[in-house]
Amino acid sequence: MVGLGRVVPEGIYLIARTTQSRFEVGEAARTRVSTRNDGWTPARPDEADTTSQRRIVDEETNRIAEEIRVRAGRGETIRVEKTVALFSSHDRGIGEPGREARLALRAAGDFDRLLVAHRRAWAALWRRYDVEVGAERPVPAPAGGDRTSGGSGGEPTGADLERGEPGAEHDGLARTQLILRLHIFHLLQTVSPHTVGLDVGAPARGLHGEAYRGHVFWDELFVLPFYNFRQPSITRSLLLYRYHRLDAARELAREAGYAGAMYPWQSGHDGREATQQLHLNPLSGDWGPDWSHLQRHVNAAIVYNIWRYWRATGDREFLRDYGAEMVLEIARFWASIASWNAERERYEIIGVMGPDEYHEKYPDAETGGLRNNAYTNVMASWCLRRALDVLDEVGASRRAELVAALELEEEELDRWPEVADRMFVPFVDGGVIEQFEGYTDLEPFDWDGYRERYGNIERLDRILKAEGDTPDRYQVSKQADATMLLYLFEPDEVEQMLARMGYTFDREAMARTIDYYRGRTSHGSTLSKTVFASVVHHLDCEEGCRLFQEALRADVEDVQGGTTREGIHLGAMAGTVAIVLRRYLGVELTPEGVVLAPEMPSRLRRIRCRVHWRGRWLDLELEPGVLRVTTDRDLPEPVPVRIDGEWREIGPGETTEVAL
Amino acid sequence: MVGLGRVVPEGIYLIARTTQSRFEVGEAARTRVSTRNDGWTPARPDEADTTSQRRIVDEETNRIAEEIRVRAGRGETIRVEKTVALFSSHDRGIGEPGREARLALRAAGDFDRLLVAHRRAWAALWRRYDVEVGAERPVPAPAGGDRTSGGSGGEPTGADLERGEPGAEHDGLARTQLILRLHIFHLLQTVSPHTVGLDVGAPARGLHGEAYRGHVFWDELFVLPFYNFRQPSITRSLLLYRYHRLDAARELAREAGYAGAMYPWQSGHDGREATQQLHLNPLSGDWGPDWSHLQRHVNAAIVYNIWRYWRATGDREFLRDYGAEMVLEIARFWASIASWNAERERYEIIGVMGPDEYHEKYPDAETGGLRNNAYTNVMASWCLRRALDVLDEVGASRRAELVAALELEEEELDRWPEVADRMFVPFVDGGVIEQFEGYTDLEPFDWDGYRERYGNIERLDRILKAEGDTPDRYQVSKQADATMLLYLFEPDEVEQMLARMGYTFDREAMARTIDYYRGRTSHGSTLSKTVFASVVHHLDCEEGCRLFQEALRADVEDVQGGTTREGIHLGAMAGTVAIVLRRYLGVELTPEGVVLAPEMPSRLRRIRCRVHWRGRWLDLELEPGVLRVTTDRDLPEPVPVRIDGEWREIGPGETTEVAL
Repeated sequence: MVGLGRVVPEGIYLIARTTQSRFEVGEAARTRVSTRNDGWTPARPDEADTTSQRRIVDEETNRIAEEIRVRAGRGETIRVEKTVALFSSHDRGIGEPGREARLALRAAGDFDRLLVAHRRAWAALWRRYDVEVGAERPVPAPAGGDRTSGGSGGEPTGADLERGEPGAEHDGLARTQLILRLHIFHLLQTVSPHTVGLDVGAPARGLHGEAYRGHVFWDELFVLPFYNFRQPSITRSLLLYRYHRLDAARELAREAGYAGAMYPWQSGHDGREATQQLHLNPLSGDWGPDWSHLQRHVNAAIVYNIWRYWRATGDREFLRDYGAEMVLEIARFWASIASWNAERERYEIIGVMGPDEYHEKYPDAETGGLRNNAYTNVMASWCLRRALDVLDEVGASRRAELVAALELEEEELDRWPEVADRMFVPFVDGGVIEQFEGYTDLEPFDWDGYRERYGNIERLDRILKAEGDTPDRYQVSKQADATMLLYLFEPDEVEQMLARMGYTFDREAMARTIDYYRGRTSHGSTLSKTVFASVVHHLDCEEGCRLFQEALRADVEDVQGGTTREGIHLGAMAGTVAIVLRRYLGVELTPEGVVLAPEMPSRLRRIRCRVHWRGRWLDLELEPGVLRVTTDRDLPEPVPVRIDGEWREIGPGETTEVAL
Repeated sequence: MVGLGRVVPEGIYLIARTTQSRFEVGEAARTRVSTRNDGWTPARPDEADTTSQRRIVDEETNRIAEEIRVRAGRGETIRVEKTVALFSSHDRGIGEPGREARLALRAAGDFDRLLVAHRRAWAALWRRYDVEVGAERPVPAPAGGDRTSGGSGGEPTGADLERGEPGAEHDGLARTQLILRLHIFHLLQTVSPHTVGLDVGAPARGLHGEAYRGHVFWDELFVLPFYNFRQPSITRSLLLYRYHRLDAARELAREAGYAGAMYPWQSGHDGREATQQLHLNPLSGDWGPDWSHLQRHVNAAIVYNIWRYWRATGDREFLRDYGAEMVLEIARFWASIASWNAERERYEIIGVMGPDEYHEKYPDAETGGLRNNAYTNVMASWCLRRALDVLDEVGASRRAELVAALELEEEELDRWPEVADRMFVPFVDGGVIEQFEGYTDLEPFDWDGYRERYGNIERLDRILKAEGDTPDRYQVSKQADATMLLYLFEPDEVEQMLARMGYTFDREAMARTIDYYRGRTSHGSTLSKTVFASVVHHLDCEEGCRLFQEALRADVEDVQGGTTREGIHLGAMAGTVAIVLRRYLGVELTPEGVVLAPEMPSRLRRIRCRVHWRGRWLDLELEPGVLRVTTDRDLPEPVPVRIDGEWREIGPGETTEVAL
């Protein structure tokens, strides 16, 4: 606690300081009370307040409150208006946060005035970010006209959410609409235009609870693409958050004996590894070792997000000044963690974990880590290829600068394509990708028996460990792991990536891989159903949509039984919205233009949303059998759009309608 | 003071906190001592140090030092290597700055290793920023090849600077070269790629002294264009610094009874007005009133810098998300400070000061401010025009958003072009712009008499006030004021701007205006000679170059007699470098391409430098009678370049040579 006291002319303030990082937060609050008798006008600070009696309570040294006593007659309504100003020492353009909070409070208008600005700000956000899915009954449609004159901003309200029975099918589309907007709302509560330029990342659990202590994980893999579609400057800012922690990632790689940069599995503000070493099992009360920091695939997530951003925006300045350095240092890490297996004549990655946290080690092993996690190995190969691309894209002079600054040796660069092309990927018979080497040697799991005994078995790890067993022994996956590739890339791309590495992986193998893991996944992470909904779409659009509906339930119904109150699941929220954009509308932002490959499940009546491509906005509207694309009038250049495989140019303000 | 102590295994640290803003600074230092006896290898912390005896001195609570006693024999050399790590609480990606400083110190290599990285970083900067002017004797030419293998980074050294007698003509070109590099060095010390994204501005006196307490003034008008030529992302970051203080500027306008945003004349981190109200005259010891905060033209400087950045880069995202709001709010301010004079049928701006701080008020007036400062009025008109342009450039949807968010009324927008076109500008007979209304009614000044009596009369204000007189009474100017327009714009542009306002201002009137004020200016600001060097160039290239040489002396010879030790003059430093680029090479970065209109004074033998335009680099080389332009190979698109009025496209890696 730094200071507290009374605000002149009205209110109270408190300044707190965090213990370790010494961030300061300043808060000032004023409370105004009025009744019908005084015409709902609270007393001005210089007037005698006949409605209430006030007393400031600050007996304790780190707590302040205002105690207000109001005489209330039977049936009388009392209006209490509380206004709070909040600043942190990391806000821009301020002195110390306590003073700023006091000044802001003094300058703040009353509730009605603040509400106007609030609605206007949200209306502008909804105009960009809304995704309409054609609900049966009208729901607030914020993407429409100007709402500055006090109309509803379209935010879902608590009352709306409770209207439908959880999980009930009645009025299902309206509920889908509502949950999608709830997800968009939470995404924007966590990361918004206000975030741009602040040195903050996208915490896995949003800003809505203390779970994971605000740490940043690989979940941003699901979150950042959401912003590419509307405001890539937000993605850029989140990528810069990683850039400013590149030195910590270098240090972590060095400590672990690797070259380049190894971003930690979990990190807080200083960018250092913050993953727990022990894990509490609430079912048994036991603390067990936690190997989850061995999830090196977080490094691939960062490169993926950089690459997606670069493809969507063509922001060469970012690539040159920041992105390239991260991609190169991560590629270097992958090359150094890969070891040559002379017998196989393949590179391998040993001692890591995939996204499936049920498998931390082999059942009989002392230490954590597995051999050749397929997802990790393919992504490592892909990252090395992108690093070589990046060296071309930044141009000769910047390339020379980077090579000098990073002390990249020629032999090192020569090795990258070799490692990329000769990376080992484990397969099961029939072309199914093996999650990691030895997964199929594990014991089959008695799904029905456990479901019978425990009901919800999403957190199988805790159940098994409480029984003295471990999921390490079984063919069970907490979440999508091997199938992640099909989430991140289009089927053609995955086929080509693996072909380049010398493996055949055709559509049938993909289908078998998806089915194989659907039957072995407990969905112990909210991300899992999101990924499966997205990849199953390739096999069966309607079945994918069924999974999509399930994925939507994660937070609104708190399907994990209590985790939502500790913080929403930002990755799953972004991932579900992305399914509508990337799968049902089939939007992809490429250097050549906007690609649209729509396939709408029959459950949805219509999809409407806006996407942004290189300074221009497109309004997309998909109905059964027809897709309409309208460009804005803002810029003179036409927008290249590929629909159903055919490129066309849409001039400013024009609408193109395509029968599907 | 927050903490201090010993660093394990070696060194000491201290964490300080500023009183008002509570910023923290953490510093850790280690000192290693070695002699030839031990082969210049300092003792490792775990070894007995036979060379020296150490003691940590921290008796005081806010001070720590290391006392090292070394036995030194006659003629013996002792090598002391001190390494310091420094962090502030506003650095990105760190925990608290003390811990970071300790960790960085532990990770830091020895001097030789640090020097390699230092040289590499400076070599990269010099490769971009150097300006060669063809010195007679070889000077370090850092723009050349790769210097990573330990070559000199080309920084001017103290020894170099002292080689020439101050002001002496011998070896003049080498000295010009050296001072230009000194200026570039100081600019990069203050604002560099490291600055991008930090919430910091360009302080008028750099980071080299305590004068002006680190405040930001209009001087950025001279500084920001310097970065446009090489790394506009730096300009963008400096403009965002202003954006994050827009609310403070709005508050200041409101308090003064105006609409929109009125940026303060001086401001610190919180963006509020921080100009002194009293001024100490060191000659008399008297404190007198200070009206300098009435310099509203700082608002025009911000719009000018936004506009220049936008023209140079085409960064529509910046304009939409940040720039437009500042331009619109400043335009609004200008429209509200302008009052209609029915008699004249003109708008006027009353009660302001121009850049010439010798004139704070009319001699007989009680309060500060003058009527119709010509520079201010023309810039106000120009800003209003740019605001209308901006509303077009951002596109219809963003325009609607801005109009709603800023509550811009139609009548308000309708008034802007009217105010812009009907703004009053005072003129003297013969077409000379009158600095402000009534300037020519003031008494002529006895320049020769005062020069005889006082020698250096640059700070005439102090001399006159110490005599009980005031410069308010005389036709004297501290610095360029009316002539600023010709510094900021090309002669054609100024002619057109005034024509639109209904005034004739041809080349002859410009020449007369420049001469008129050259004869009435004491150059009491280091910016003054820079401006005159730049505008006189239009009349007489050789005479302009003579003034340019004088302007170069400002800091290196501390011509103001002691002000340099309080901090370098960043605006003058940037302004002089800009003369080489904007006048001698005649570079202008436009949406259509790079315009080159070279005119090199005979004093310079050759000019070589690089400029950046929208992702591409151009190498420029000017020799008498010939200009060579080479583009880099980095991007496939050709660069449009206009030389001598004729546009041509230069393909990647091509050189174009034009006879002049």
